[in-house]
Amino acid sequence: MAKVIVDVMPKPEILDPQGKAVTSALKRLGFDGFSVRQGKRFEIDVDGELTPERLDQIGRAADTLLANTVIENFDVRVEQ
Amino acid sequence: MAKVIVDVMPKPEILDPQGKAVTSALKRLGFDGFSVRQGKRFEIDVDGELTPERLDQIGRAADTLLANTVIENFDVRVEQ
Repeated sequence: MAKVIVDVMPKPEILDPQGKAVTSALKRLGFDGFSVRQGKRFEIDVDGELTPERLDQIGRAADTLLANTVIENFDVRVEQ
Repeated sequence: MAKVIVDVMPKPEILDPQGKAVTSALKRLGFDGFSVRQGKRFEIDVDGELTPERLDQIGRAADTLLANTVIENFDVRVEQ
């Protein structure tokens, strides 16, 4: 069974309050000098063979459902 | 500046209601035959050089803050 990964991250120009909260919490815990941005990771198991059409379908699914493309970028890749 | 990625995913034996909701939504939209698990992705910019000590620090940060290791697995990797 093929596995496809979709990573969704806030666009660089968009504020990321979750990431900021994590960055502050790390600092409080003594982990200094890190700057964090938080996004989502989707692992998609594909039934049957992963054809170019299926992969294209996942791209459209990411574009319509998994990511909000106004504020987020996404990246689709096949896991080896 | 070095960039380190931490992926956090629900453990395989743990129910993933978010992933199930996404799987169902995809089906309703006509994207059939996919099974989704949803997790988190952290992009960490490291100030200065990425020494083995700094990387080890990120591993401990992931273990204590970024992931709930009772129900989640995490993976730390340096982005090329």
